Amino acid sequence: MIRPFRVAALPIVMPIALLLLSATPSVAAVCTPHVLAPGGAVLFDAEATRARDSVIAMQRSGIHVPVPRDPGGGATHEQHRRNYRALYEAGELYRLTKDRCYVQFIRDMLVAYADLYPRLGPHPARANQQYGRLFWQNLNDAVWLVNAVQGYAAVRDAIAPADRRHIDEDLFRNYARFMTVESVATFDRIHNHATWATAGVGMTGYLLGDADLVEQALLGSRKDGSAGFLRQLDELFSPDGYYAEGPYYQRYALQPFVVFAEAIARHDPSRRIFARRDGVLLKAIRNAIQLTYAGRLFPFNDAMPDKSLNTEELYQAVAIGYAQSHDPALLSIAERQGRVAFSAAGREVARDVAAGRARPFAFTSLLLRDGARGDLGAVAVLRDGDDARGMALVAKNTSQGMGHGHFDKLNWLLYDQGAALVTDYGAARFLNIEAKDGGRYLPENETWAKQSIAHNVLVVDGRSHFDGDADRAEQSAPTQLHFAASDRFSVSIGRMVNAYPGLTMTRTLALVSVPGLERPVAVDLLRANAEAAHRYDLPLHFNGHITRVGGPLDSKVVARPVLGETHGYQHIWVDAEGALPREQAYLTWMTGDHFATWRWLPQPGARVILAESGANDPRFNLRREPLLLQRIDGARDTLFAGVLESHGHYDSETELTRATDSQIRAIESASAPGLDALLIETLQGARVAVAVAYDGGADTLHAITLAGQQLEWRGPAARIVLAEKRP
Amino acid sequence: MIRPFRVAALPIVMPIALLLLSATPSVAAVCTPHVLAPGGAVLFDAEATRARDSVIAMQRSGIHVPVPRDPGGGATHEQHRRNYRALYEAGELYRLTKDRCYVQFIRDMLVAYADLYPRLGPHPARANQQYGRLFWQNLNDAVWLVNAVQGYAAVRDAIAPADRRHIDEDLFRNYARFMTVESVATFDRIHNHATWATAGVGMTGYLLGDADLVEQALLGSRKDGSAGFLRQLDELFSPDGYYAEGPYYQRYALQPFVVFAEAIARHDPSRRIFARRDGVLLKAIRNAIQLTYAGRLFPFNDAMPDKSLNTEELYQAVAIGYAQSHDPALLSIAERQGRVAFSAAGREVARDVAAGRARPFAFTSLLLRDGARGDLGAVAVLRDGDDARGMALVAKNTSQGMGHGHFDKLNWLLYDQGAALVTDYGAARFLNIEAKDGGRYLPENETWAKQSIAHNVLVVDGRSHFDGDADRAEQSAPTQLHFAASDRFSVSIGRMVNAYPGLTMTRTLALVSVPGLERPVAVDLLRANAEAAHRYDLPLHFNGHITRVGGPLDSKVVARPVLGETHGYQHIWVDAEGALPREQAYLTWMTGDHFATWRWLPQPGARVILAESGANDPRFNLRREPLLLQRIDGARDTLFAGVLESHGHYDSETELTRATDSQIRAIESASAPGLDALLIETLQGARVAVAVAYDGGADTLHAITLAGQQLEWRGPAARIVLAEKRP
Repeated sequence: MIRPFRVAALPIVMPIALLLLSATPSVAAVCTPHVLAPGGAVLFDAEATRARDSVIAMQRSGIHVPVPRDPGGGATHEQHRRNYRALYEAGELYRLTKDRCYVQFIRDMLVAYADLYPRLGPHPARANQQYGRLFWQNLNDAVWLVNAVQGYAAVRDAIAPADRRHIDEDLFRNYARFMTVESVATFDRIHNHATWATAGVGMTGYLLGDADLVEQALLGSRKDGSAGFLRQLDELFSPDGYYAEGPYYQRYALQPFVVFAEAIARHDPSRRIFARRDGVLLKAIRNAIQLTYAGRLFPFNDAMPDKSLNTEELYQAVAIGYAQSHDPALLSIAERQGRVAFSAAGREVARDVAAGRARPFAFTSLLLRDGARGDLGAVAVLRDGDDARGMALVAKNTSQGMGHGHFDKLNWLLYDQGAALVTDYGAARFLNIEAKDGGRYLPENETWAKQSIAHNVLVVDGRSHFDGDADRAEQSAPTQLHFAASDRFSVSIGRMVNAYPGLTMTRTLALVSVPGLERPVAVDLLRANAEAAHRYDLPLHFNGHITRVGGPLDSKVVARPVLGETHGYQHIWVDAEGALPREQAYLTWMTGDHFATWRWLPQPGARVILAESGANDPRFNLRREPLLLQRIDGARDTLFAGVLESHGHYDSETELTRATDSQIRAIESASAPGLDALLIETLQGARVAVAVAYDGGADTLHAITLAGQQLEWRGPAARIVLAEKRP
Repeated sequence: MIRPFRVAALPIVMPIALLLLSATPSVAAVCTPHVLAPGGAVLFDAEATRARDSVIAMQRSGIHVPVPRDPGGGATHEQHRRNYRALYEAGELYRLTKDRCYVQFIRDMLVAYADLYPRLGPHPARANQQYGRLFWQNLNDAVWLVNAVQGYAAVRDAIAPADRRHIDEDLFRNYARFMTVESVATFDRIHNHATWATAGVGMTGYLLGDADLVEQALLGSRKDGSAGFLRQLDELFSPDGYYAEGPYYQRYALQPFVVFAEAIARHDPSRRIFARRDGVLLKAIRNAIQLTYAGRLFPFNDAMPDKSLNTEELYQAVAIGYAQSHDPALLSIAERQGRVAFSAAGREVARDVAAGRARPFAFTSLLLRDGARGDLGAVAVLRDGDDARGMALVAKNTSQGMGHGHFDKLNWLLYDQGAALVTDYGAARFLNIEAKDGGRYLPENETWAKQSIAHNVLVVDGRSHFDGDADRAEQSAPTQLHFAASDRFSVSIGRMVNAYPGLTMTRTLALVSVPGLERPVAVDLLRANAEAAHRYDLPLHFNGHITRVGGPLDSKVVARPVLGETHGYQHIWVDAEGALPREQAYLTWMTGDHFATWRWLPQPGARVILAESGANDPRFNLRREPLLLQRIDGARDTLFAGVLESHGHYDSETELTRATDSQIRAIESASAPGLDALLIETLQGARVAVAVAYDGGADTLHAITLAGQQLEWRGPAARIVLAEKRP
């Protein structure tokens, strides 16, 4: 009976390895797997059962509190992670069942930690991060504390006084001292690592009745508000609840924010923590969900592209957000997750889901300002339809976003029919996979993933934005010139002036409905204005298999050159290059069950390069993904104009296909001082223009001549239908 | 109200294009979308509704019978496909509802065809295939006939005599004449194209009461049994119901076999067609399903790798198979498909599914002999568990399989945890995608996909098996020396003697349970015995991202050489190469949420090459997929020994990983005349040997010394546990 549990919980080799390392594992009392919480809240019952089985399996294999040794993904690392999870779960199980076997388990494990902890120094596998004691980086220690203290809180009153004192003093107070004194450099940062640290210390303070610890957690180690949780809450989120590091870290940071905020609301309701800054935490929860497509977070900056709504942090965020707001749209997210937090709030979510109270979460076009005061650019999401099959364009006009930021000013992403069409590489990292540098960020994260050429942005003279200097990059943010969203025309205009000296980039990205086309077309107008002549490279990273190249190129079929030597160019293999005339300047690819065509206007002298990532990668650390690069040499003021059309369908089941080729006949542009315009003409003869003005107000009248026709419009951007179809 | 139907049924541009081509489209009567078949057979009701909506949409857009013009995927091609589908569906709808609007629709469309057909000659887009009249290849014309004649059969009695005569004579008899006379070269083949042709002609004969047509269909145009449906049934399937061209074409060929067989059983029950050859057709249906993993057909020979159980042919096969056998396991396949054939048999399947009669389909280890007499090799499937997450090894020891066969003698595939680990490229083809040579097989199907180096097989002196000569390849088949399947040890031994002059290849493939490892290990022992010295290349095509290379190689990070010039080598880029000592001879990769390690024994002087497909591919026709190649020069008798271990788990949701690295410490081999053995030793100290003998009977005693230990076993193959774990 024991065997299946052990197999499921631990690989066979691990107990042996741990025996060699651990304080002698004690055999814990094993709880009886009686039926739990038959309350009709199906989602919660499943969590309780899962937690119960997991804790019982850990009890059966004995308590293992190994001396720390391994980096991320290694045996001791994973064991301490399992332990904090078990502490948390056992605490909730005790709240639920009042079965003292869970008290015994938590007591035994925490005594083992209290015996071990005072003997620990800096972690032996520490790298260039702030070190921890249980883990290679301090962050993981903070996460351990946030979880463990919740488990302890559930059972502390039921533990014998002598044990309680031992655990209070030798483990938790000691631990809090390590976080606030030895790790003060982390603790006092305005950064998600510090949020975990202050949350852990603050909840420890509440539990031990130590007001000083709570004050340090809220106001920083100096207790003057220059650091600490409240300042983090004020500075790390924009007024719209956007987190400066981007969606992947927003998801990660949310957990300590909401968990500690929930504790603050309970212990100190007069602080009205969830109302602070006009309810910014609740906005942050809702907008973390808005920053997804088909359930996955937009992968900008350092992000694992597979990170989805199904993550413990977002179960907690949905549960605590729902407990505070009772927004029924959050219930539909819980339904979709198929999971709830294993907590009282999670139980409420599950009950209300079971009661049929869920309402659809409305994925919508929106603009989220970046920066504590909302003045450091923005992320604009343009949507046509839902997040499952509808089109979504993301304009990333945000600030650098600290150490996890990429040099990708005015970057964009595009999704349709459930898949990414225009992509972001995310981080070069294999999370928790020991063979890949212990699961840490790989060197290629710096040499490729962060570099401008790895994004869909203008690269000047072969060098990344800000010359790849993160400190410089923090000093400047884009300006969101315009944002508007409607059924047939949604548009974002962003501007960046300091990415390169003497150069201004202005980018219009729009979803444009075109008569006769079944889906909107994505329009990209990127204007560079420069004081001197430069080489411009504009990559488009796309997802799919090339089905048609508009015209003949010089194919590198027996020797693929590497595109350059620095700033990410060293990682690019060239497949083909050449100059294409306007009517041949397009590329069609197949993504899953549909097709996309990128069509652009080549400037005089422009060349196009088809390429792939993966050069100079002896350890196979990079994914190999295709890109198209437009290149112009010796250019100053230049407009890059292109349209991305998602079209057609391929059905492998019925073998019926349609519209596998582009339905657009041609595009054409016109420019005048402060104005740009693009005309799209379909095979059926529909003609639609997009016109933008970079100066003037909402009602300013503008005019331009495009393809022999005078266009007039008011305000920053307009869609103008010239013909519905061929006359 | 009309608009959504038109949009769904046809891309917007198509009606205009068709107007230019068609006989003037007549506006057909539109049926009323009343509720259909409320019989509780949910799956069937959905089919009926789908068919009704589809037919009504076609009625609303008017009948289009365009003059044939386009190749596969083009507008006229797709329209004629839609038409035959609509004819079939309208016929079934009339059977179901007796609503005459469907009669009118079929009558109008068939009259349009009867008007057009006599004026048609060879299709203008014909290529090197036997041409059709409505389609670029004769095959599609046959498929049209099989479907259309069923629709016509449903309504013929309800059509006015003059129209009926026009349709009978000008269309169907004319059509049958084209198939049996002008296309006699196809009609009299022993090949799936001819099965479609004979099925169409035979069903036409039954409908028109034309015994001569029926006789030609059954016995060939000469009516002597030298060709025709019965001979196809006798020769194209092995006694185990394996179809010579492989699973992809087995699926395709099944439809005319079962549909015509069903008609024969109805019109001529005394033939006992489903009992013929010990029920070979029913075996063929069941074994087509056995030849899948996670719902996809094993992609050997020319195959689209995305082809699944969800295909019209297999809905028909399941329905007719169930009507004949009432095997409840077929019902579970229908449940999984979520679809049934839109026919009386499909309705019975749906009713019995709804009544809860389904029983699980047992995916199991099995040996399917190839060849009409079962003497042309075999395909061996070794399974551990189900087809959703369990391990499956496929040993392809079959004959060449005619024109769609690949030069891949003794090839193998491996699946685990829902994904392919060791792969087959399948066909180089983008089905129905016009940009890719009109959806036909691409030139790279010959230059890459069929070549030996594109498979997991021994390649000698840089040339494909049989020197790439399909006629020579048809002359020789492998011999299946041994097959056995049990819980802890399943094994196949195949031998091939004529792929290269003077060279014998013998390959043992096994799934072996190893104490302490959670999943079986795949063992590969490939023995080459040669009269002269050769260069041997043994590729392993794998699916995943490399996480660890066992030792340092010479990485080609700035210039990747192309491996060769012919026989597929011209399509291989070299990523790295070198010699690895035995303890470093392994490669680990990540596939989805798990890991695999391939570990091999390098012979003295052997080198390893890590590479990728995609060189010499200016039109981006190839997928770029990784391979590992073992190479030895100047070798004669040689044993290639390797093990593939599927291990560990990566969970992006919880961020818990385990066993990301191999759990095997070492492997070692021993050989003696007629004997080979391999020892696997795990990190925990388990030691398991696999021993094989190529000569002798089931009880012959063999002995060999391996790693200083004497092994004894009886029969062709054994698993011998030397140690459960470290003492």
